[in-house]
Amino acid sequence: MVDQNRVLELHERHTGVLGIQGELPVTSRAQLAEAYTPGVAGLAKLIEKDPSAKKKYTVSGKLVAVVTDGSAVLGLGNIGPAGGLPIVEGKSLLYKQLADVDAIPMTLEQVSADEFVDTVANFAGSFAGIHLEDIAAPKVFEIEEKLRERLDIPVYHDDQTGTAIVVLAGLINAAKVVGKPLQTLRVVINGVGAAGVATSKLLLAAGIRHQTLVDIHGEVTPGDTSYNRYQRDLAAHVDMVPGETLDDVIADADVFIGVSVDHVLDGSEVEKMADSPIIFALANPVPEIDPDEAFAAGAKVVATGSSQWANQVNNILVFPGLFKGLLEYGVNEVSVPLQLRVAQKLASLIDHPTADRVVPGVFDEGVVKAVEGAVAEFKEQ
Amino acid sequence: MVDQNRVLELHERHTGVLGIQGELPVTSRAQLAEAYTPGVAGLAKLIEKDPSAKKKYTVSGKLVAVVTDGSAVLGLGNIGPAGGLPIVEGKSLLYKQLADVDAIPMTLEQVSADEFVDTVANFAGSFAGIHLEDIAAPKVFEIEEKLRERLDIPVYHDDQTGTAIVVLAGLINAAKVVGKPLQTLRVVINGVGAAGVATSKLLLAAGIRHQTLVDIHGEVTPGDTSYNRYQRDLAAHVDMVPGETLDDVIADADVFIGVSVDHVLDGSEVEKMADSPIIFALANPVPEIDPDEAFAAGAKVVATGSSQWANQVNNILVFPGLFKGLLEYGVNEVSVPLQLRVAQKLASLIDHPTADRVVPGVFDEGVVKAVEGAVAEFKEQ
Repeated sequence: MVDQNRVLELHERHTGVLGIQGELPVTSRAQLAEAYTPGVAGLAKLIEKDPSAKKKYTVSGKLVAVVTDGSAVLGLGNIGPAGGLPIVEGKSLLYKQLADVDAIPMTLEQVSADEFVDTVANFAGSFAGIHLEDIAAPKVFEIEEKLRERLDIPVYHDDQTGTAIVVLAGLINAAKVVGKPLQTLRVVINGVGAAGVATSKLLLAAGIRHQTLVDIHGEVTPGDTSYNRYQRDLAAHVDMVPGETLDDVIADADVFIGVSVDHVLDGSEVEKMADSPIIFALANPVPEIDPDEAFAAGAKVVATGSSQWANQVNNILVFPGLFKGLLEYGVNEVSVPLQLRVAQKLASLIDHPTADRVVPGVFDEGVVKAVEGAVAEFKEQ
Repeated sequence: MVDQNRVLELHERHTGVLGIQGELPVTSRAQLAEAYTPGVAGLAKLIEKDPSAKKKYTVSGKLVAVVTDGSAVLGLGNIGPAGGLPIVEGKSLLYKQLADVDAIPMTLEQVSADEFVDTVANFAGSFAGIHLEDIAAPKVFEIEEKLRERLDIPVYHDDQTGTAIVVLAGLINAAKVVGKPLQTLRVVINGVGAAGVATSKLLLAAGIRHQTLVDIHGEVTPGDTSYNRYQRDLAAHVDMVPGETLDDVIADADVFIGVSVDHVLDGSEVEKMADSPIIFALANPVPEIDPDEAFAAGAKVVATGSSQWANQVNNILVFPGLFKGLLEYGVNEVSVPLQLRVAQKLASLIDHPTADRVVPGVFDEGVVKAVEGAVAEFKEQ
């Protein structure tokens, strides 16, 4: 358990967990002239004439904005922008400490998708990238789509893309452990919010066609208008097992991927799955099924979102190195082929996958470098 | 002269002049749990319940956004948001290096006043204050007014408030040097943009009623609709010398304050002024009149915006200490009484004003502390 008083004390000590660092000294008129006026006037004129120079000489070449409106915080729900701030501030800290990427947290009021897009587009000129976080689906799909169209810097939604990449990485290795070819796996995805939709899309791109998407209202089908267009589009592209509920569709499935809430899966359902079931129970802080219960029911590989058990499927494995690579190699889009490459690279960090080790640990040496390297290789293709 | 190549080299070395600093280490699972998850979940819930806790535990308690759209950069005009970025980045550096205030530069697209206000209001929740910079008047007056109404954090427009404070500070001491009571001074302000309007207002609040405002189109009068409402309102409150042009109204004036462009004042005009004229020629980088020419025509005190001559009237004397004080003492409005107090405090730093020394130097010890102290005294009143 974390000592909550110590957490508060640590976060109060510096008023948050980040600070600004000045990179040039300003203690004399000569230094002032170089760092600020009149030196910057020439730089300002240079950038006015050649806007591409901005990335070279100002923080807009390196600074990432980690943006949330706090409308869909993992495990906490809609806690508002203020409530969401410590999460994006923590992610900004991880960017710095794990990958030396300069990032700042920004909260936005809970406005319409269009106003959200306008707001970010209005201030994006001073940033090198936009990391979207903890924003409710389907609004976030529209926000991400429109921002990608309008901006010429990377726009990355961690809850979607980060989750999808690390799930695929884990699944590549889990398939090896159970001795089944990846593309033949029959997968049930429980929870079709941002993470579920993005994960399904990436698995599809990886050749996994047998997918069934369910949530609390039952199975997602192309014609069911109680689902949004992103969910229905997806359902139209996968080969589903027909059924009404999770309990129906779980029969004979090879893989359960839960990006939903705690305790929605029980041992009797795991028993109905195909041999050597793979369980990714990623709800946080409490998984969809307790790993012990899953193993008792015959599960072969179990992963969760928590550090409490083996196989922690956590986006921290992805976003620091990924954005480091995007900025370093000038890649502006986290396209599906890039996502596939990063997932393969992450999976390949484990030479001999075992049931206890299908993904690297968050602090394993070389993770950030490998992910960054995947971006470099993608760029060089 | 500044070596422009060296300026470029310095600004390229770290991709800008600022970086992010992580205040907590993250090298182990235990540290991760405290700095990020699951520790921040408790903090997020605490802030959701009590939003006032946000200022204590997150960067929103200390981080200032220095915001520009690059529409009115001193001496350069409308060079756009990209062109304006090095200026606000430089100011952010000065905040850090002179007063240990954490600030980041932000550029905004050149949108309507209302959209500018909406954009800043949408992201202001993660900041402790908003510093507006280099935004064209009269739009900036509307922006500042509306943001002050909507936000519960300080909104400070440096071109207006900073300039007004340091001009008044210099004028308090210049009046002593020429042996005239401050409130009897007949002042001509040439240039009625943001700086001119704000300076006129503050001088009025300091009891200087004899003011004439002129610009390139002639004297500002309450009924002349070629001027905006802010300029006309002001003209209605001062006792003007009637006249059509600067050349008309300068006769018998005690003080010339130029916040306009280079070389609009000549020696023959200075000769027409009252005895012991005070000349604040603040256009940058080239003043309204060369100090040598002004002295030759009888000027007693000459101040400019440049470090090339004695008496550099520069906002750097104000904004670092002012914002430090606002944040330190929880003052949310830079009201006129506060501006007067800061100006008096700055002026009082010079025990025996002389023609060569009516304002402190930018690097004089104690300037930041004194300005910060003025905010503390104001708060304690």
